[in-house]
Amino acid sequence: MENFTYYNPARIIFGRDTEAQVGREMKKLGSRVLLVYGGGSIKRSGLYDTVVRSLTNEGLSYVELPGVQPNPRLGLVQEGVRLCREHQVDAILAVGGGSTIDTAKTVAFGVPYEGDVWDFFEAKAEIREALPIGVVLTIPAAGSESSDSCVITKEEGLLKRAAASEHMIPRFAIMNPAFTCTLPAYQTACGATDILAHLMERYFTQTTHVDFTDRLLEAAMRTIINYTPMALENPENYDIRAEIMWAGTVAHNNLLNTGRISDWGSHGIEHELSALYDIAHGAGLAIVFPAWMKYVCHAGMPRFVQFAVRVFGVDLAFGEPEQIVTQGIRRLESYLQSIGLPIRLSEIGIDESHFAEMAEKATKSGPMGRFLPLYAQDVESIYRLAL
Amino acid sequence: MENFTYYNPARIIFGRDTEAQVGREMKKLGSRVLLVYGGGSIKRSGLYDTVVRSLTNEGLSYVELPGVQPNPRLGLVQEGVRLCREHQVDAILAVGGGSTIDTAKTVAFGVPYEGDVWDFFEAKAEIREALPIGVVLTIPAAGSESSDSCVITKEEGLLKRAAASEHMIPRFAIMNPAFTCTLPAYQTACGATDILAHLMERYFTQTTHVDFTDRLLEAAMRTIINYTPMALENPENYDIRAEIMWAGTVAHNNLLNTGRISDWGSHGIEHELSALYDIAHGAGLAIVFPAWMKYVCHAGMPRFVQFAVRVFGVDLAFGEPEQIVTQGIRRLESYLQSIGLPIRLSEIGIDESHFAEMAEKATKSGPMGRFLPLYAQDVESIYRLAL
Repeated sequence: MENFTYYNPARIIFGRDTEAQVGREMKKLGSRVLLVYGGGSIKRSGLYDTVVRSLTNEGLSYVELPGVQPNPRLGLVQEGVRLCREHQVDAILAVGGGSTIDTAKTVAFGVPYEGDVWDFFEAKAEIREALPIGVVLTIPAAGSESSDSCVITKEEGLLKRAAASEHMIPRFAIMNPAFTCTLPAYQTACGATDILAHLMERYFTQTTHVDFTDRLLEAAMRTIINYTPMALENPENYDIRAEIMWAGTVAHNNLLNTGRISDWGSHGIEHELSALYDIAHGAGLAIVFPAWMKYVCHAGMPRFVQFAVRVFGVDLAFGEPEQIVTQGIRRLESYLQSIGLPIRLSEIGIDESHFAEMAEKATKSGPMGRFLPLYAQDVESIYRLAL
Repeated sequence: MENFTYYNPARIIFGRDTEAQVGREMKKLGSRVLLVYGGGSIKRSGLYDTVVRSLTNEGLSYVELPGVQPNPRLGLVQEGVRLCREHQVDAILAVGGGSTIDTAKTVAFGVPYEGDVWDFFEAKAEIREALPIGVVLTIPAAGSESSDSCVITKEEGLLKRAAASEHMIPRFAIMNPAFTCTLPAYQTACGATDILAHLMERYFTQTTHVDFTDRLLEAAMRTIINYTPMALENPENYDIRAEIMWAGTVAHNNLLNTGRISDWGSHGIEHELSALYDIAHGAGLAIVFPAWMKYVCHAGMPRFVQFAVRVFGVDLAFGEPEQIVTQGIRRLESYLQSIGLPIRLSEIGIDESHFAEMAEKATKSGPMGRFLPLYAQDVESIYRLAL
């Protein structure tokens, strides 16, 4: 087990009707709010009205930053920073999913920084302060509601990059699973796969003596694998949605990678896909992760055997690790297909024309991933395995 | 799943040599420290010297409150409150296990309170503020290093009672498993059983649709059950101690009971035993918990079946739930015996002479436990089952 520091002060307020508390919680953070959201879904569901009423009832004023898109862009962040400065905003509220929260986070540490906020995504500056952030979560996927990281895409060069700091951990996250009951099937499946991938990135480690966190990760992975098909069959079932939503937060709040070195290769490889082709991140992960597993498994077979046995219940003679691992990956692929996701690039019309370019971009600042560090040539091979 | 709020801002600093950071962390909390500890073990191990040197290097002054005993007493708390006021202490550092931390916590919320600190343990007052607390943990057991609760015994009437508030959550907990390698076998087993009991109190619930937290709890229970015998066989093994230590913290930081109503009957029943007979809390739990299970299992057989199957691997025909549950309890008892703990009161020389009196005290402020609320007569029956 590696030495570690674990710190997550986000206050999670989970359950039915909790969104009515948003004004009271925001009032602890400030008085002039930037309200960040995406499109019309929170207006259709009535959540927007509830939030605005709750803010107003507490005497808070707000300015709006709507229009967040999936794979959120730097341009909107810059607009948010400008709005915050113009209106002396002192707290930010994100209402939506990971893209909305990541936009809010980037605005939050962009406001007090005099330079270009993109500096933080290129490791040219360290985040030392940020406006306080509150969240009302509507999509279980990114885990951004209590994580210390965010991902933004710069339009110029289509660079999709991450930044991290404990200053961006939201002060509170209000989570009512009822708002996830209207998510379309594809978005439900993509979100669940992002959650599963967050768990797998942590699970595939070369760190030894991490049995406790292994088991926590397996607990969360089995929850997602069990409940996602059930959510697709019974989209309106609150209890099923609640299991997924809470697992999605815990998957990414850093508890589950305490003492271990996570991989993150598949995320990096996928980010190039969604940056260039604007596909859903979860769908990209469904394609990349199995290919990554096939490419790297020989660098640590026992862990892949453990995954196959404990997560997917593969029950073959232990003397045949190759077979066990192959079956484990196959079951993962079958599961992903069963929830309606693509598992090959060719299914979504992506061919090899940009493989070399994406592989170069993914490894520009060094090899990708920690389980087996991957160079451009390796990444290209993985894209090819995913064709 | 029940609505819930989860909030735990304790900073965990875990691993080898982390104790050297204590001065730097305490400096964030204050400048005049009350140093709380127990007996000579931290002096023998050299930890005391390291801590004092680290505090001094950071320019912090300190006054000492040594002499914390297991089942910590109110008298020492009052002495601590007096010392803090006399020396204008502004932060408290606990170096030790649960008894030391619980003493520190009670001093921390006792100092700013003008009335009798025991008021908080009788629900006559609500904790609204506390001095900030830091912890260097040496015994994995109570989980107090990041929990929001504490247990103190009042000498007069031998009342052992709990208090809770997020104000008492330590700001940081430094945890180096190396310091647990010298714990005697019996203390190792008692600590592990306290951890297991914290998990079981949460596991046995009537709340439905809590599959994710069930699985997290099972992950932690299996970790403790697997690693405790290994720690007894290889007491000096850092990696084994690390699994137990980290599981012990997560077991009690409230994440694992999110969305579910925990029981806590066995803890209440045990507290009367350790208050009256001054036995180790973990040993008392090893005796009480199996008896409690036998008494209440018919109030919710499926959960006891799940425990037997998932935690202890009982593999009998599912049409015989009685048999499965009986085997599950038997395996728990065998496990507890295998790590050297008593499972009957008669083994530690306790007879029925105080059963009625303890049962009355345990249920004085209402029935005990949530899985099946227990009245005095029920509690007495459980003591009898434990004979």
